[in-house]
Amino acid sequence: MTPTRQDCSVLDAADPLAPLRGEFALPESTVYLDGNSLGVLPKATAARIAQVVQHEWGKGLIRSWNSAGWITLAARLGDKIAWLIGAGAGEVVVADSTSVNLYKVLKAAVTLGEPNPKRRFIVSERSNFPTDLYIADSVAREHGLTLKLVDADELATQLDDEVAIVLLTHVNYRTGRLLDMAAITAAAHAVGALVVWDLAHSAGAVPVDLKLANADFAVGCGYKYLNGGPGAPAFVWAHPRHTERMDHEQLRQPLSGWLGHRAPFEFTADYRPALGIQRFVCGTPPVLSMAALECGLDVFMQAERHGGMPALRRKSIALAALFIELVETRCVGHGLTLVTPREPALRGSQVSFAHANGFAAMQALIARGVIGDFRAGTADDTNQSSDLLRFGFTPLYTRFVDVWDAADHLHAVLETGEWREARFSQRAAVT
Amino acid sequence: MTPTRQDCSVLDAADPLAPLRGEFALPESTVYLDGNSLGVLPKATAARIAQVVQHEWGKGLIRSWNSAGWITLAARLGDKIAWLIGAGAGEVVVADSTSVNLYKVLKAAVTLGEPNPKRRFIVSERSNFPTDLYIADSVAREHGLTLKLVDADELATQLDDEVAIVLLTHVNYRTGRLLDMAAITAAAHAVGALVVWDLAHSAGAVPVDLKLANADFAVGCGYKYLNGGPGAPAFVWAHPRHTERMDHEQLRQPLSGWLGHRAPFEFTADYRPALGIQRFVCGTPPVLSMAALECGLDVFMQAERHGGMPALRRKSIALAALFIELVETRCVGHGLTLVTPREPALRGSQVSFAHANGFAAMQALIARGVIGDFRAGTADDTNQSSDLLRFGFTPLYTRFVDVWDAADHLHAVLETGEWREARFSQRAAVT
Repeated sequence: MTPTRQDCSVLDAADPLAPLRGEFALPESTVYLDGNSLGVLPKATAARIAQVVQHEWGKGLIRSWNSAGWITLAARLGDKIAWLIGAGAGEVVVADSTSVNLYKVLKAAVTLGEPNPKRRFIVSERSNFPTDLYIADSVAREHGLTLKLVDADELATQLDDEVAIVLLTHVNYRTGRLLDMAAITAAAHAVGALVVWDLAHSAGAVPVDLKLANADFAVGCGYKYLNGGPGAPAFVWAHPRHTERMDHEQLRQPLSGWLGHRAPFEFTADYRPALGIQRFVCGTPPVLSMAALECGLDVFMQAERHGGMPALRRKSIALAALFIELVETRCVGHGLTLVTPREPALRGSQVSFAHANGFAAMQALIARGVIGDFRAGTADDTNQSSDLLRFGFTPLYTRFVDVWDAADHLHAVLETGEWREARFSQRAAVT
Repeated sequence: MTPTRQDCSVLDAADPLAPLRGEFALPESTVYLDGNSLGVLPKATAARIAQVVQHEWGKGLIRSWNSAGWITLAARLGDKIAWLIGAGAGEVVVADSTSVNLYKVLKAAVTLGEPNPKRRFIVSERSNFPTDLYIADSVAREHGLTLKLVDADELATQLDDEVAIVLLTHVNYRTGRLLDMAAITAAAHAVGALVVWDLAHSAGAVPVDLKLANADFAVGCGYKYLNGGPGAPAFVWAHPRHTERMDHEQLRQPLSGWLGHRAPFEFTADYRPALGIQRFVCGTPPVLSMAALECGLDVFMQAERHGGMPALRRKSIALAALFIELVETRCVGHGLTLVTPREPALRGSQVSFAHANGFAAMQALIARGVIGDFRAGTADDTNQSSDLLRFGFTPLYTRFVDVWDAADHLHAVLETGEWREARFSQRAAVT
């Protein structure tokens, strides 16, 4: 029996995480299923930012680097992320963008330890987010290595002692497929390679345990599931075995800005990397954007009182399973193909359907107030041949009735054929 | 005759830029002479940021990348900086931090054109801001070059055909000394070197004409004289002769994030740099911090109606000259030594005095509501042997009476000896 909207209301009433929805300023009459691209605004953020602007900056001025703790933002926010990704206190900093942080950790990884000419590959997944591949290719070229792209299913057979670094995104941005961090890390270590994880689509979305998996480095994004605001700064983690080496100067990254220096206010001419993860900080942090991210992270501290990541994961799986069931049941014959793994353990917190007219269908859906997003099929993409409708499920604020309404509208868009209207096929600059 | 406070009031009354002070939310009973470290809050910023947070992010959500123009922020803000630094429209982008941008342009410069093993030096000034030296050293090491530090006065004699790149900060962060951009650029070009200018202490403070000087690359800071807020994103410029080469793929920087791609939303696996300066953009911009910077830049658009950079420069010179005269006249015998060039054409918009107890003296001054800053003498510093009291003059909002009051308080601090009080000698984490 396909669940009814009333069934969904019952699920919402029993949801232990339901109170958290009240922490967000959600636009009325919108079903927002794009928190995997840009998370929604926490209610606390506006007042906090006003305080930073008017009081800390406006009145405190330069003194606020100390008095308002701006100088410790990178570490403080890092600690608020650490527990979400299985890292320890003091092991994470927030700085720069995910791309810039990825460059830092790849450069640190590639120069770590003794050079071994036999290890000539950086291995990544063919359908990894392009910016990761661009950055990895940059680093590979600079060090005479080659970026080798493989399908996720080939990973196990493609790792050998010619691999220097394995760079993977934990949850694929198109399909939502979740990789087995522990197993892949172990397989890479077995051949002597280092492993870098991009947690852009997993931090705050699925349980992550970097230490348990024994990973080497990780980066991630502040503006998706962490609700840090548009372009929020990113984070970076390195396993303490790398940052706490006795010959700690060995772990170097070339973006050696002053705030990654051991004693930045000594203004010495020579660079000495800070102890621990702080050496991955470069320049002065964008304080307003950092403050907004902190508000997003603080909601997770509250979520901890409602069951934390295990509860979030349970709800995320339930939301996605409900969506898959509703869409597959109600939209039969409309050319939708599920590309996200059906097995909950193999997916993140999103569901993607391929559709030959995905762009127009998503535009029509957005016009009805259901916001997901669209990802075009790419020439290089060997996994699926068509465009994707992508729906992110953020258990902090998405209700079961929202999922029901989204499936209902998708059904209507396809059933009425309204997606064929000309206005839905015009692409804006950004999709 | 030493000017009186009344004389200063007369100067303020005649100041064509005086109305601009009303554009800033200045704390009462504070004389803020630290705009060269963190500029003050423009009045328009709080409302604009509230709009970005509540309306653009809160209600527009992901749609605001198009509808609110977030995706064009890097270029739009770049254009609002271009005219301040003698660059053309479309030649500047705002992105990342000054340190990160410096890395990009140095990497682009070092790989530009044919490799020439004879050119083995990156030359910079010994007392350049440390982060510039750290980044330059990183790039030098990566490319088998050596960072060679010289005194500013030795530059002319140290340039030869072994120099690949000259990296200089236009206005020295300690002394306020202003280098002759056109002459040094010409001298570097005469030996076949490329020139990178850091405009951190000059953009918005002194007239800059990168194109007239025929410079190669420039970077600069958004949170000092541009009043973009704490940690505001930075900017980057390249001369069009480099970005518009027929073999334009040649100009590469390794932070090849998706927003520097020619067609970022095609999500192709291979990186193709965007045309023009856009290739120096890397990841997703921190929108809140970008929006604040735009408010700072918009004040300069207003300043254009009050005489623009020439008027700002005239007032800056007059403010600094007044301060030097007042301090040197009134504080005789208190051990202050002017380290900023006395000749207006040779200084930026700050005045620094060396003092053996500079730290405590500045703390005592701050306690009186006059905020300048302190820079410790460093072991590597060959130019001066003691600590510096540093005063920045921002003609957009600093009045002549503020300068008089600052000198008056400095005199009182030294005359009373109150700086000897224990509370003024305790150093906080950040100074």
